[in-house]
Amino acid sequence: MKNIQVVLARRPNGTPVAEDFSIRETPVIQPDNGQALIENIYISLDAGFRNWMDEDAGDEVLPAMPLGQPVMGLTVGRVITSKHPGLPVGKLVMGRLAWESFSLASDDFLVPLDDNDAIPEHYHLGILGDTGMSAYFGLKDIAAPGPGDTVLVSAAAGSVGYVAGQIARIMGAKRIVGITSTEAKRQRLIKEVGYDEVINYRQGNLDEQLKSACPAGVDVYFDNVGGPILETVLGQINQGARIPFCGAVADYSRTAPSGPSNLFMLVTQCARLEGFLTHTKLARYDEARQQLKAWMGEGALKTFVQSYQGVDQCGIAFADLFAGNNFGKTIVKV
Amino acid sequence: MKNIQVVLARRPNGTPVAEDFSIRETPVIQPDNGQALIENIYISLDAGFRNWMDEDAGDEVLPAMPLGQPVMGLTVGRVITSKHPGLPVGKLVMGRLAWESFSLASDDFLVPLDDNDAIPEHYHLGILGDTGMSAYFGLKDIAAPGPGDTVLVSAAAGSVGYVAGQIARIMGAKRIVGITSTEAKRQRLIKEVGYDEVINYRQGNLDEQLKSACPAGVDVYFDNVGGPILETVLGQINQGARIPFCGAVADYSRTAPSGPSNLFMLVTQCARLEGFLTHTKLARYDEARQQLKAWMGEGALKTFVQSYQGVDQCGIAFADLFAGNNFGKTIVKV
Repeated sequence: MKNIQVVLARRPNGTPVAEDFSIRETPVIQPDNGQALIENIYISLDAGFRNWMDEDAGDEVLPAMPLGQPVMGLTVGRVITSKHPGLPVGKLVMGRLAWESFSLASDDFLVPLDDNDAIPEHYHLGILGDTGMSAYFGLKDIAAPGPGDTVLVSAAAGSVGYVAGQIARIMGAKRIVGITSTEAKRQRLIKEVGYDEVINYRQGNLDEQLKSACPAGVDVYFDNVGGPILETVLGQINQGARIPFCGAVADYSRTAPSGPSNLFMLVTQCARLEGFLTHTKLARYDEARQQLKAWMGEGALKTFVQSYQGVDQCGIAFADLFAGNNFGKTIVKV
Repeated sequence: MKNIQVVLARRPNGTPVAEDFSIRETPVIQPDNGQALIENIYISLDAGFRNWMDEDAGDEVLPAMPLGQPVMGLTVGRVITSKHPGLPVGKLVMGRLAWESFSLASDDFLVPLDDNDAIPEHYHLGILGDTGMSAYFGLKDIAAPGPGDTVLVSAAAGSVGYVAGQIARIMGAKRIVGITSTEAKRQRLIKEVGYDEVINYRQGNLDEQLKSACPAGVDVYFDNVGGPILETVLGQINQGARIPFCGAVADYSRTAPSGPSNLFMLVTQCARLEGFLTHTKLARYDEARQQLKAWMGEGALKTFVQSYQGVDQCGIAFADLFAGNNFGKTIVKV
């Protein structure tokens, strides 16, 4: 039994590319006392992990990823051998493990999962995991869209964005507008996800496209990217606008990100830019998951997954994420 | 009877200087039907009016200030001749009028005032006006400082900042720290206003001074300046930090203000940057004024005013404001 691992071959220079990663096979190591061996089933690809790929990244709790070692990532897997009483064989778990077929783990960074046939295992990485809950908490706690509101979502086809657009609709917003990077994604977002309008920011002037797509201005901007798009949107926010600030893909790959020069718009428009992280809301995971499941059950919330087959695809899938070739939640089936 | 006016002689190039303004005497013009003649008593100097001094500033409601005309400003005055039934002779009013001894006005932009001997007229321009209420609303509605909180205030000696520091103390914050631009103001803020520590940002490294003055990090940053100081403070905010964003003096004089490159700190710290304007809270002016008066009555809130004598001093007073030569609310006694 071999362990196929995808390792960090070199530190990405800006935007990650597939060549930053390489594949190796190692023997599967059996667990020590207090450990369990997990067979990974799905691996989640998340842009945020880019943050730990730079040499000077991380902190004492979570240091920068070492070169030549399996890349850190979120996975769902099942315990297959155990020397840990809390992690019995057969247990389904989610954890911050690595891009590999098998992982050794103690209970640090491991969450036991509800093993329920009605829920595909990969939902725990997407719609019922961090990304789905990010959309939920950002809209419910910060944006609170009302009936007359125009809601704009950046990275609208991304794992958080495609859920945010749908939840804004469920919450009764008047107009849901997305920003994405290709015509193909634009079409799918309108036809399959239900956005009213979607802007391809790589095609034509963003400022003018925004004015045309949001003729009544922007009441909520669910920001998944930061950077220059945030600056352009700030120029068109309405009085009392709310900006749940979820991610900053634009900044992950840049050594010297520039900030918006028009932050003062927040003052003149009495608007709010508020960052958040799902993991600070642990006590409300149940509420969020129940609500998301209920909406899925009613058919109001659809799931989109871009799945790659084989653990060796992790590097390619990760690079695709930054190249904008993803639609919905990106996962690798191990 | 002559009207002494201070006119905009040329458009300021960045930071306003006294030479941008000139003085002229004109005859006092009597009111037409629907107008009243106001004798200005005090003129308020507010950095925000800088925004209307550029040629391309303003909008249809409030266009850029024309060259050669009296500078737009907030004043308190008394009606001395009237052809307006709602503005009887003797009535005390506050209005967006001009840097001049006498102003003609209809009731646009005019607010009748409570004419009460216990309240000096200039309080309506400061502690009980826009600046005092800005401090109140920013702390009460956005910051809500708690008992363990470190509250940092920029432009701490300014008209909003000196009030904000005191209100944070009244609301029970643990540590009140200010940022100012001279050693003289630093000393007065500690000794007279009651700040625990004050940083002179022109002296030494701001980042290091902040770490030393706020050893437990920053929970509330009452931001009156924006610009590079905001960037430095963002590097030291705590989880759940609140940043009432009140003004951006740093930006008023700059053609191309740069934004903070580390806005993503708002995400990692689940923090909130929220702009506000007092004039959107008209319905709560009574609440704010009653509370501010009560605190003054208890001796918990002190008033600091920097007063210039003579309407011809307006340009000098305005330039002093940008040069950092002000302490408390800056007014000109006409």
